[in-house]
Amino acid sequence: MSPTYCGLVHYPVLDRSGDEVTTSVTNLDVHDIARSSRTYGLCGYFVVNPIDAQHPVVEKIIEHWSTGAGVKRFPERTEAIGLVRVARSIEQAIADIRHREGTSPRLVGTSARNGVDRISYAEERARLRAETRPTLLLFGTGHGLSPRVLQACDAVLAPIEGPTEFNHLSVRAAVAITLDRLFGTKERSNNPI
Amino acid sequence: MSPTYCGLVHYPVLDRSGDEVTTSVTNLDVHDIARSSRTYGLCGYFVVNPIDAQHPVVEKIIEHWSTGAGVKRFPERTEAIGLVRVARSIEQAIADIRHREGTSPRLVGTSARNGVDRISYAEERARLRAETRPTLLLFGTGHGLSPRVLQACDAVLAPIEGPTEFNHLSVRAAVAITLDRLFGTKERSNNPI
Repeated sequence: MSPTYCGLVHYPVLDRSGDEVTTSVTNLDVHDIARSSRTYGLCGYFVVNPIDAQHPVVEKIIEHWSTGAGVKRFPERTEAIGLVRVARSIEQAIADIRHREGTSPRLVGTSARNGVDRISYAEERARLRAETRPTLLLFGTGHGLSPRVLQACDAVLAPIEGPTEFNHLSVRAAVAITLDRLFGTKERSNNPI
Repeated sequence: MSPTYCGLVHYPVLDRSGDEVTTSVTNLDVHDIARSSRTYGLCGYFVVNPIDAQHPVVEKIIEHWSTGAGVKRFPERTEAIGLVRVARSIEQAIADIRHREGTSPRLVGTSARNGVDRISYAEERARLRAETRPTLLLFGTGHGLSPRVLQACDAVLAPIEGPTEFNHLSVRAAVAITLDRLFGTKERSNNPI
């Protein structure tokens, strides 16, 4: 099984008009994605943001829930928040994983848009089970990962689809659903479809 | 197919010690769950909160994204936020659905805890497709729906499980995963498991 990490990318991502921008850290992104990562057995969660001024925001959240007032009241949040790392860039997250695992991770991108060579969740699920190299799953904030990030990925997952044409899930919801599709257990095996 | 609604319940829910409490409305709960509900084709999303002072919070969010400054910048949020309704109680949400659909809804509860007679997602998925009555899916804030709500439900879904023992997903993540398990399309059919 591939030791799997996720990264929430604040740069380079697109804005509404398709320009590359840097987005800001959102408090609940740190919490929600840490809790989903912990539930589905990920080895770490990187908040990828190049702006130095944003790092204390994340570090303050980590500190509050690791050593501060949060520990006694919500011990399960301490456990989840222990997965969170700050990285200045995707490259820095890759270097961190290489340092921990001894090998560079396979990069798996996500997108709300269709494109050529998108892989299915079933394929990636099988791949993760066969793979010994680590994997880094990348999620974009704003209007999604820049095309140059997707091009640099080893694989890009198909968009999450419901029965409607609406494809504007929050990134927190998209991460939760993606992890459930890749790592969800038990109930999945009852699914007759 | 059953016209399906969801309700985010702020009362009666449990706190950490198992006492019944009322929780407060969280801005991102309104947005994230509206976007997930819209993606998976729900007919409406009830924010269930008995405290009058909390209603303007939700109404202000609805107004901002329906007619205010939000419409031009984020038209897709307007579409999602159109599903949101405020209800004082679960009973009021039921009455609202009965008024719209002509029949009272089947109540389906959710819980992060196991219990007797939990149904699988596969069973509920099949049921929703066979059912003509409307369905109301209930999600608890805080530490989950009060046992008396679960007892009043026609069915309660099994807890969402990953490969770990950690069962502290955010309610936003739990709603997203539940809707994907019940209404997710296409990719699901590729799943070999």
